[in-house]
Formats: sequence, structure tokens, C-alpha cells
Amino acid sequence: MVLERVNSPDDVKKLSTEELRQLAQDVRKFIIDVVTKTGGHLASSLGVVELTLALLKVFSPPKDEIIWDVGHQSYPYKILTGRKEKFYTLRQYGGISGFPSIKESPYDVFGVGHSSTSISAALGIRVGKKLKGEEGHVIAVIGDGALTAGEAYEGLNNAGQLGEDLIVILNDNEMSISKNIGAISNYLTKVTTGEFLRKAKHRLEEVTKKIFGEKVYKGLKRVEDLIVKGLFPPGMLFEELGFRYVGPIDGHDLDTLIVTLENVSKMSGPTLVHVITKKGKGYEPAEEKPERFHGISPKKTNSDSKQPTYTEVFSKTLIEIGKKYKDIVAITAAMPSGTGLDKFKEVFPERYYDVGIAEQHAVTFAAGMAKKGLKPVVAIYSTFLQRAFDQIVHDVALQELPVVFAIDRAGLVGEDGATHHGAFDLSYLRIIPNMVVAVPKDEEELRHLLYTAVRSNKPFAVRYPRGRGYGVLLREPLYEIPIGTWEVLRKGKDMAILANGWTVYQALDAAKELEKLGISVTVVNARYVKPLDEVLLRELAKEYELILTVEENTVKGGFGSTVDEFLAPWYQGKLVNIGLPDEFIEHGDQNLLRRLAGIDKEGIKKKVMEFLKKRASSL
Amino acid sequence: MVLERVNSPDDVKKLSTEELRQLAQDVRKFIIDVVTKTGGHLASSLGVVELTLALLKVFSPPKDEIIWDVGHQSYPYKILTGRKEKFYTLRQYGGISGFPSIKESPYDVFGVGHSSTSISAALGIRVGKKLKGEEGHVIAVIGDGALTAGEAYEGLNNAGQLGEDLIVILNDNEMSISKNIGAISNYLTKVTTGEFLRKAKHRLEEVTKKIFGEKVYKGLKRVEDLIVKGLFPPGMLFEELGFRYVGPIDGHDLDTLIVTLENVSKMSGPTLVHVITKKGKGYEPAEEKPERFHGISPKKTNSDSKQPTYTEVFSKTLIEIGKKYKDIVAITAAMPSGTGLDKFKEVFPERYYDVGIAEQHAVTFAAGMAKKGLKPVVAIYSTFLQRAFDQIVHDVALQELPVVFAIDRAGLVGEDGATHHGAFDLSYLRIIPNMVVAVPKDEEELRHLLYTAVRSNKPFAVRYPRGRGYGVLLREPLYEIPIGTWEVLRKGKDMAILANGWTVYQALDAAKELEKLGISVTVVNARYVKPLDEVLLRELAKEYELILTVEENTVKGGFGSTVDEFLAPWYQGKLVNIGLPDEFIEHGDQNLLRRLAGIDKEGIKKKVMEFLKKRASSL
Repeated sequence: MVLERVNSPDDVKKLSTEELRQLAQDVRKFIIDVVTKTGGHLASSLGVVELTLALLKVFSPPKDEIIWDVGHQSYPYKILTGRKEKFYTLRQYGGISGFPSIKESPYDVFGVGHSSTSISAALGIRVGKKLKGEEGHVIAVIGDGALTAGEAYEGLNNAGQLGEDLIVILNDNEMSISKNIGAISNYLTKVTTGEFLRKAKHRLEEVTKKIFGEKVYKGLKRVEDLIVKGLFPPGMLFEELGFRYVGPIDGHDLDTLIVTLENVSKMSGPTLVHVITKKGKGYEPAEEKPERFHGISPKKTNSDSKQPTYTEVFSKTLIEIGKKYKDIVAITAAMPSGTGLDKFKEVFPERYYDVGIAEQHAVTFAAGMAKKGLKPVVAIYSTFLQRAFDQIVHDVALQELPVVFAIDRAGLVGEDGATHHGAFDLSYLRIIPNMVVAVPKDEEELRHLLYTAVRSNKPFAVRYPRGRGYGVLLREPLYEIPIGTWEVLRKGKDMAILANGWTVYQALDAAKELEKLGISVTVVNARYVKPLDEVLLRELAKEYELILTVEENTVKGGFGSTVDEFLAPWYQGKLVNIGLPDEFIEHGDQNLLRRLAGIDKEGIKKKVMEFLKKRASSL
Repeated sequence: MVLERVNSPDDVKKLSTEELRQLAQDVRKFIIDVVTKTGGHLASSLGVVELTLALLKVFSPPKDEIIWDVGHQSYPYKILTGRKEKFYTLRQYGGISGFPSIKESPYDVFGVGHSSTSISAALGIRVGKKLKGEEGHVIAVIGDGALTAGEAYEGLNNAGQLGEDLIVILNDNEMSISKNIGAISNYLTKVTTGEFLRKAKHRLEEVTKKIFGEKVYKGLKRVEDLIVKGLFPPGMLFEELGFRYVGPIDGHDLDTLIVTLENVSKMSGPTLVHVITKKGKGYEPAEEKPERFHGISPKKTNSDSKQPTYTEVFSKTLIEIGKKYKDIVAITAAMPSGTGLDKFKEVFPERYYDVGIAEQHAVTFAAGMAKKGLKPVVAIYSTFLQRAFDQIVHDVALQELPVVFAIDRAGLVGEDGATHHGAFDLSYLRIIPNMVVAVPKDEEELRHLLYTAVRSNKPFAVRYPRGRGYGVLLREPLYEIPIGTWEVLRKGKDMAILANGWTVYQALDAAKELEKLGISVTVVNARYVKPLDEVLLRELAKEYELILTVEENTVKGGFGSTVDEFLAPWYQGKLVNIGLPDEFIEHGDQNLLRRLAGIDKEGIKKKVMEFLKKRASSL
């Protein structure tokens, strides 16, 4: 085991290529051992082991600054930059993050999580180093999938223009999370498969024949390859954007990688190194099905596994609705299996669109479809929808176009941590005029809210959490839940709790326990955050002197806040809001994080007791 | 006047090319006559007169659907699609919008305002037409400046991959709003100036010499142009993204335009037509200084013109701060003169970055700089900052990097209308952990808040309105306004008004008039929306049974909402929030819109009286 002797980048630097080859094997084994236990992003990290070693051999972080785009491929880097001992704590509460984080290590020079920010960040760091007179290279490592997103292009465009020394390593594994999408991907495939050369040859052939005739053409034929390669270097697209293009090179060949990076380190101006890697490299199950091993869960027996996930119920229901309504089209931004739309694709291939990692485009594209009378359903994770805020406002809400947002992973997602929690959607969506915002209390209600959304002819968001539902009966047929109506689940005398989403059952449980303490509680499923059920809310406000709201969303500006706004001018009682605290929440077990945030049964009970105690003491 | 006889696209279709040439002159004259009176976007509309005529000659809207990117170049289109008679109402309250709007006309097939959405929208409409079995072409007209933004690239990338029939017209005037920025712009310049050809020739020369020697090269020399043009068609970048490239053609030559568009209309798949136009064409002052004539104000004597604009004060103050702190860098997304950073550039060219229309990149780029210890100030309009919401959350706030956001045009902007009002920033910024959000009451306070922001070492937003300040004394030296402190401007006995930004002086005026009616009012300048001045707010809440908040931001989730949240659990009195209504607000005079929204002196007075009356009647 070479890995045993390696604790820092300096140790890597001293190794021979032969030892590095051994180290690559060790690192792979170590990652597979740990990640199959802890869960995490396996395939992408296995793909960049040699690339990471070569980077550490040639460059000297943290003086040379390496920014990993998205960052789920940073495990080898983490292990080799001082976090080997802690690696077994990966993605666990209090342990190391699954993504680079500036608070975790000086080697993580820029925090990431969402795709396609690395070039912009690297360029900022480059300019910062220059103005501060600091030495060192700046390197962004970006996957081909991340190149689909607009911000990556904005970064390339600006870097190409500024001409600063910047190394962009294109880690081309022909996958983003699932199969890569888009013209840029087709282009890279052409470059790497020689199709680009064939096309160039064809063009040369045509021109030569036309100008010089058949004879000269035949004379040229023998040296054709040479001419073509000279005339049409691969990667012209990047050259046209102001980058020097190097590659493509084999991303698992350490010798080539090291020589190439050494050469590149001596170049000036923006340089793009095109590296071909294999996702899941060295772990057969992951090589064969990289999509399945993009992110894996820890090995454990899950007794709840008969309960379907929200994603599964969404997926099944959308197909059901799709059969009834021919105008339904489904759109994903590079998350077919994550969102469950892969199943929809199987049934309705012609009504399914994967636009690649391109959330802004996804939303405007959907708005265009809605304008033509289709009923687009954009299935997207809460945190990624943040990328398309402006498009929701302008292209959908302002024009009142009936786009449905199926927002998965809303609330705390668990191990993916701060960059992936869907903590803000209720707050940023409910401020947008014309929007309907709904939150199902369980997987069954998700079905009918989705149905309501599709039939509503309005901009409509339905947000639901990561993970499994409750195994409740999934009623058929689908029915509509009138917009802006809540549901009283339990009647009590002393106070009312308004909850939605995951917190509804928690509130019910809390109510039962409070009952035993002599506090009689009404529980309402406030499934619409916009519009509110104003009639019911008015009645509740007349009846109770204490109303408590609870939500799995930041307590700032969310559901509780909208209740406060409504009641503030005239309510005689007191309002208590529970939600996620106004801070970024780290990674850890989903339910642990919910407990720590105080939005579970215990948190609700505690808050009620605290409040009553305080009131009693002030009387 | 041919224009007199033209009332619909059908009328345009019947005209001969000679008559179209006359019509172009008529349309130009008409636009100049009206817009110099009403104000509006002059230069870009003058640049596309011939292009619009050619589109209407060849295509048949609304069956063929034309989407104008940004849309400020749509005046000729509006005039020729049934809005000639109303054109004099341009951008006035109740009149026609300065941008395409689906509510205004069936010829406006997709509403726009922010840049770079047209390709995505057009692709959605294309797919919609296909699935609905509708006939007709779909055409996006996009400027070269708008091509800098990520969403345009996301759209191109997806369109190139889908291969649907789609016509993208690249209206290349080598300007976005001011001089165009970025590698893509350099690329287009190379294509259109022949530099691309020169480079290709050089490459051919090198290759030929290397492979065949000097002699063959000399033989080739004579036919070089032919070879080069055959081997390297211009626009290869677009071809590589899956588009057929046509052009470049002269966008003021009607014959060429019509023939080209006729040919293109028969092609299938995605096609990009590169059209070269001159911004401001046909109006000498605008041709010479297109930036000054991008948007013009109506001709009127402005007696207030001695009062500086907020933009001017920001600009001047940032230079002042920049002299003191060498780490200040300024970033704009294609708005150097709009934000006032053009002046900063004159003084500190090496500390100024215009990244083009690329708000996402601008924010991450700034975060990268901040990571290296610089103090970046991102100057941006409120409405455009919506594009970078995710980047503010992740790259700045999560990492607690000290990026300062100087948010201009916050609140109602007036004639630009619904797509340009900065109605949401307080709501979407104050939900983000770690942010400081400040609102100066006048141009003098802007200075010191900006200074505070730069010195704070925190993510810090300062938002200020479009237009002129009050001409108040600009005090020197700059001083810090402690974060989270408000200012009591007036003490009264009966109630408190908490105001910020433009509404502060309105609240003071309202208070004076209420005093005369026997209502004694405290007025507080609540200049920090996050964090609140909790100490003062607690005192006020103990003292007054009525607190009224007023802000130039949506009443949903904004400043008032955050006060509601804070007071809800224990406040004994009543809270009334005034802000912009929860709806999209159309175009019109800025102060008229403020009055209609009820956030001015009269609105505040009225609300107070209403509330007191209601309370009196309920007693």
C-alpha cells in the first residue's frame, strides 16, 4: 500500500510514476471500501483518480489552486490532501463533506455543489491572484455534462476574452449524471471518435476536386491525414472562443497526463486540456452502470422499503395523467432517473425532453411549449430550480403560462448537505405573482395535487421531499384539491398548528402527546402556501389565541411568514413560526437534521411548551 | 408615405422592393418622430427596420412566429403589426409596452424584456407546434450581445441537438448595450472582418509548406481564397453546435435579406442567419453614439436636473472608496454607463471588469475574487440580479465571501415596465443566510452604506432606486452606519411608521399631514432589512399599538414581512404592511406607478386613516 505513506500532496510529488500507478489502485480500493459503506458519489470519483494524481504530481496546491466543478469527483483529492483519516466520516453529520468546502480545508479553494461554476470561480481567483501579486496556477476541472450549462459558457467566454493564464481541464466521460445531452456533447463525441476528422476530410475532398480536379485530389489523398490534422485541429470550437486546445488525451494514462500537464503548466493564456476518462473506472459494477453508481446509498437493510418514494409516486402518477391528457410533456435538466421521468420517457418518448444541465433553458423552453397549449411539467430538484428564478418570474408567471413545477428534494436532503438542501423554495416562489404553491402532506396527496396542477391552467409548483412516503393508500381515481383549500386533520380547543409537507404527521404526533399533557390541539394541513385558505385561517384566528406554523423551509419568508402577513393587521393572539433556521445547514442524516432544526414532533412539542410556559410566567 | 397605406403584415407582403425601401424610410422617420417625444429604445429599433420588413415580406405572422430577444428592437414590428395608431402611447401608462407582450397583441408570441431567452422560447414553441400539428415557421431574432448570456447558449445547444426546424437570426451590430464583450464577440468580429479568413490562410500556408514545400505552396497561393473559403466556411462555431450557418449578410440590403430569408424558409433543421446591422441606422446622432441613444428620455425640461441621480452618486462614491482601498474591484454585466461604472473604469481601468450579459458568471467571478482577498463590487440592476439568485446563495452567502452588491433600479423603474421593475429583491435577498441587506433613504445615505458594505467583510447588498435623489448635502468624509441600526427621524405618540428607501421622505410628509389631523406619528428610517434593528423594534413595539411598514418592494416576503415575523410571537398591537401589490405592474411614469401602488405620501395617509376608522368602528 503506497497510500499508507501518503498524507499530503508533497508525499505524492515524491513518488515515481510506477508508485503513482500503485497509488491509483490503492486510492480506488480505499474509495470503494469506504463509499460502499458510507454512501456517496462513487463513479465520478473513480473516473478521476489518475487525473488527480497527475495534477498533484505537476502542480502544488494550495499555491496552485484547483477548483473541482460540482465537486462530487473530489474524493481522491480529499484523500490525498490531508483527509484520508477522516474519509470514513464522509457525508455524515460532523464528518467531512461530499463536496469541496472552503471551511473544511485550505486545499478546497472554492466551495461547489451545483454544476458549472468552476470556470467563473477560477477566473475570479486568477484575477485576484494577479491583482494581489500572488504566484501559482489556477485550474478548473469541469465535466462534459457541466459544459451544457450556461454559466460554464459565460465563464469560457469571459476567460477567452480576458486572456489570463487559466487552465481548464475538460473531464470528458460522455456522461453528466446520466447520458450526456446536447449539441456540445455531440461535438465532443465527434472530436474524440474521429468523426470530426472524417468530416474535415470530406470537406477537403470536395474543395480539392472542385478547384484542382480529380488528379490533384488523388495526389493529395496519400497525405490527407497530415493535411487534415494540420488544417483542422480538434477542439476548434474552444480555439474559436479564445482558448488554446490540448488533447484529447487518455485520462487513465499517467505518463501522458503528467507530460501533458507539465507542458501546459508552461503555457500562458487560457488553455483547455481535453481528457477522456471512464466513469466508475476500476470498479466493474460502476463501469457497467455508471448512472446507478453516480450516487450510492450506504449498505443497510431498509425495513421501510415497501413504502414508495415520493419520486416513484410522482413518476407513476405523471404517466397516469399523461395517458389521460395528450398535451402533457415532461422536461428534465439532466436528471431522468433522479426525478423519475425515465419511466415517463419509456411510455411517452415523444413527449419527454432532457435538455441537459440547463435549468434556465428548461423553464423558458417549457414556457414556450405552454404558450402553444401544451401542459409542460418541469421536474426538477428544489435547489437546482434556484438557477431559473428569473425565468419563472418572467417567462412563466408574468405571462400566466400553465407550467407545472414538480419540485423534488424540497426541504432537507440529508447527506448532500448545504448546497443541496431545498431550503428556500417556498420563500422564493410565494413572492411571485400568479403562482400557485402547494405542498403535499404525503405521497397520496402528491398525486392529487399534481393532478390539480395539470388541470389548473396556472403556473403551479408542487414541492415534495426526498425519500420515502408513508405507505398510505394511493386512491384512484385522481381528483382535484381545490386551490387554496386546507384540511383540518384534528380538532382541539387550545391552539392550532398549521403544518405542511413532511411536518404534517409530525404535528399530528406532537398533538397527540400534547393532549396527554392537557393541551388540546387543532392540526391543519396547510397544503397551499399560495394562495392561503383565507376563510379557514380567519376562522382559526378567531377561535385560537395561539397559532403555530411549521414547515420544512427556511423560517424566513416562507409559509409561516405568509400567515404572519395575513394575520398581522388584526389578529388578537400570538403567532409562532417554526421552520429551518436562518443559516446554512450542513450534511448528515435527513431525519437527524430535521430533528436538530426543531421541525419534527419533538421540536414542535418543545416550542409549544416553551411558549405556554413563557406566557404563564408573564401573566 | 407608404406607411400611411400599411396597417397589417398583409399590406407589407404586397409591396414591391422599391416600395419597401420607401417604407423603411417612412418607418424610420416615424420612429424618430415619436420616440424623441415619448422616450424609448431608439438605436436598436432603427437598426432592424429592413430586417423587420424582410421578415414580414417572406414570413406570415402570427402563423409564423417571430420572437424578438430582449424586445427593445421591436418598434418597427409593432408599428407594422397593427399598432401604428397607438404607437404614440409607447411606454406610457395605459399605452403600448416598450417590449413585446402576449397580452398586447397576437403578433407578440412571447413576452420578453431580459436578454437571451428567445432561442429557448422559440424552441419550446417549435416543439409545441409540432406536437399540436400546427404549421408555420419559428424565428428567434437575437443580438450579438445577448449571445454572451448562458441561456442563449443553453438554447443553441439544445436546439442543435434536437434538430427541429428553427431559424435563429443573429442580429450582429457589434454592440450589446454598450460595446460588446467576450470571446464570442471577438469571434463574430473575426468572421465579419475577414480576420477569420486571414487566420485560416495562415494555417493553410503553414501546413502546405510543411508537407509539400515552398513550391507547391506558391502554386496554391493563386487559388488560396477559393480553398480557404471552401475549407473554412465562416460560422463554423455554430455549425459545430449543430446549426446550419448562413451569412454574414448586409442587414440593410433589402434584396439580399429577402432572397436569403426565402432560401432559409425552405431549409429544414436549425439554421442561423448572420445579419450585420448598424445600430441607430438612418439617424445620424444615434449612428454616431448608439450607446447614448440605446434608450432615450422624452424631451422635456427637467427642473430637478441639479439633483444628482443615485447612479451618479454611487459612481462618484465608489471612485472615492477605490482611491482609499486598493482591493476594490468593480464588475458590471454589460451595463457600464447604466450603472455608472464607466467612470470607475476611467480612473481604475485595471480594477474594472465588464463580463458581458452574464449575471451568473458575474457573481461567481466576484466570489472568486473575494476569495483572494479583493473587495468586489457587483453593480447590477435589481431585475437582472434575479438571474444570479443561485450564485448569490451558493458562491457568495454560503461561503460568507465579502461581495458587495450595488443594486440599482430597485423598486419601480417606470416606463420599462413589468419586466424591469426591481420589485422582488428585498424578498429574495433577505431569505438568504449571512446576507446584509440595506436600503438608503437618499443619495447621501447611499454613500455611507456603500462605505459600510465595503468595510464590512460580509456579503452585503445595497439597493437604491432609479432616478434622481433629493439634492441633499453629500457629507464627507465617509462613515460607517453600524449594521442593523435604524434611525428615528421623528417622534410621535400614536403610532410608528417604519419606512425605507424612497418611501422614507413620503412617510415623513404623510406624518406631517397626519399631525394636522391630530395623529402623532413616529417615523423610522429602517435602512437595514437584514438584520433588523431588533433593539429599536422591540422598543417601538412596546410603545405603539400600531406599527405601519412601507417599502418599494412587493408586500409579499419583503421588509414588512420580516417585521411581522419578528413581532408575531409577542406583539400586542397591530401591524400594517404597505408595499407593491402582489401582481405584475405595467409601464408608466415612475411616480404615477408609485402613487397607484399606494406607497407614496397619499397612500400612507390613506392606509393610516382607513385603519384607524376600522378600529374606531370595531370598538
